[in-house]
Amino acid sequence: MNIATAIAFAGSRLDRADHVRSDPERLAALRANGARLLRLDGLVPTLDEDGALQWGALDEAGEAELVFLGLIDGRGMFAAVPEAGDMAPAYASPNVWPLLGRMSAEDLATYGGARSLVDWHARHRFCGACGAATAVARAGWGRRCPECSSEHFPRTDPVVIMLAEYAGKVLVGRQPRYPARRYSALAGFVELGESVEEAVARELFEEAGVRATQVRYVASQPWPLPLSQLMIGCVAQVESDQLVIDRDELEDVIWVDRDGVRAALANRDEAPFLAPPAYTIANELLSRWARGE
Amino acid sequence: MNIATAIAFAGSRLDRADHVRSDPERLAALRANGARLLRLDGLVPTLDEDGALQWGALDEAGEAELVFLGLIDGRGMFAAVPEAGDMAPAYASPNVWPLLGRMSAEDLATYGGARSLVDWHARHRFCGACGAATAVARAGWGRRCPECSSEHFPRTDPVVIMLAEYAGKVLVGRQPRYPARRYSALAGFVELGESVEEAVARELFEEAGVRATQVRYVASQPWPLPLSQLMIGCVAQVESDQLVIDRDELEDVIWVDRDGVRAALANRDEAPFLAPPAYTIANELLSRWARGE
Repeated sequence: MNIATAIAFAGSRLDRADHVRSDPERLAALRANGARLLRLDGLVPTLDEDGALQWGALDEAGEAELVFLGLIDGRGMFAAVPEAGDMAPAYASPNVWPLLGRMSAEDLATYGGARSLVDWHARHRFCGACGAATAVARAGWGRRCPECSSEHFPRTDPVVIMLAEYAGKVLVGRQPRYPARRYSALAGFVELGESVEEAVARELFEEAGVRATQVRYVASQPWPLPLSQLMIGCVAQVESDQLVIDRDELEDVIWVDRDGVRAALANRDEAPFLAPPAYTIANELLSRWARGE
Repeated sequence: MNIATAIAFAGSRLDRADHVRSDPERLAALRANGARLLRLDGLVPTLDEDGALQWGALDEAGEAELVFLGLIDGRGMFAAVPEAGDMAPAYASPNVWPLLGRMSAEDLATYGGARSLVDWHARHRFCGACGAATAVARAGWGRRCPECSSEHFPRTDPVVIMLAEYAGKVLVGRQPRYPARRYSALAGFVELGESVEEAVARELFEEAGVRATQVRYVASQPWPLPLSQLMIGCVAQVESDQLVIDRDELEDVIWVDRDGVRAALANRDEAPFLAPPAYTIANELLSRWARGE
């Protein structure tokens, strides 16, 4: 995959400047010289009239914990940890989705990464090893326990998302919470002790009863809502098109040919389903498959 | 990648039987009918004379928390959470490495996944959101806080590991803690808000000063030592062979051609470096590159 290939929530202008995180003097100098604070309302972005992320002065953070996001044009960019993290189920952010559609690709990536980081802090103020209150460490890229000295690091969960392919068709499914007619790629968390390929095969079998024989990696995407995930997009060849649908997870699963996928991506009336939004890796998987890539 | 392609720590015989985790009756029936307990000494596997994992009766666990690993031949397989998790730095498990070399591929995968799971429990007995003591949930695939109702899930961290490629050579580096002459692929954690491809490019630039232009996914591997990681193996084309080495991370970095990599993999005297062990994905990346895959 070409590095420059844009996928939503990747491609921030921020230089993560890893070396600054462990350099208190450099960090203090950045804070004293025109550092900027990402303006968030809780976890919701604050946009100006043009849809650009708003940045304020560091002192707007008050007593909140600060995290160092990185550098833009040599200037230190920070965010503040909100009082509460996101405890809502996936897609339960109705006030965020319309804003995302107004943002540039770069701002979307900057917001997504910042949101994931401050949300993790807000949901992890205590030490998992001993229960004591922890403090920000590594300029926001960790927390340290003053009682037992455990270090804790921001978390992102690997998730596989995939199209099963058989006889010129791909498999898409719908969850009950989806908008009407929406179908998307199947997905699930990679569990401890399994490879990407094993997770793809397990999820396809659990959810749709199909057996994968080959798994091909296609693309990846950082995904911030509600919690930080690394989406790993694949296409899997399967043994047969016979389905056994897990009705606890999925309302329906259908096989769609290239014409059907193209019609869905073009949002045409005769499309067999409503495609997932353009900023999802599921849309990217379908688009590349429709182009024969 | 073919599902059947063996990579170390993948390919367990365990059926994870996800549906059983949320079915207390089924779980109780499994526990009452010949369930087996993985025998661990802390986090160290217990092997019989043939190098096979030892399994005992469930009551050997005493008062320890139990986790459901899955099914083998329809029988419930469990492990117990040890008193302490692994707080040691990577590779500081001198008593584990020799045992791994004696185990079958299937047992290696079963042990790796079980170790990752019980180690996570041992290091996360308290709620990150409120600090209260938590209890096992979902048959060991989560913990629940009785105070604030937060749910916590076992963690595995995505890590990129990659060979940079330029003009028929690949880049390998050595950390100060490596055995003499050992070089391996560069690697680093995928951070919040970045794709696999961005993480590969960032790590190569941070550690060796080379700019990636294309990133190709090769294979993945679950890795259990010391903590649970999902290794995502890639090869990256870079712009030039000019290096700027991060001496805080790496003692040395060298470019090696195919003959050199082949000599290293064959452990020949004239090899320019000592290859990483056969059970690592770094070895797999080098082997596939040497074969021109």
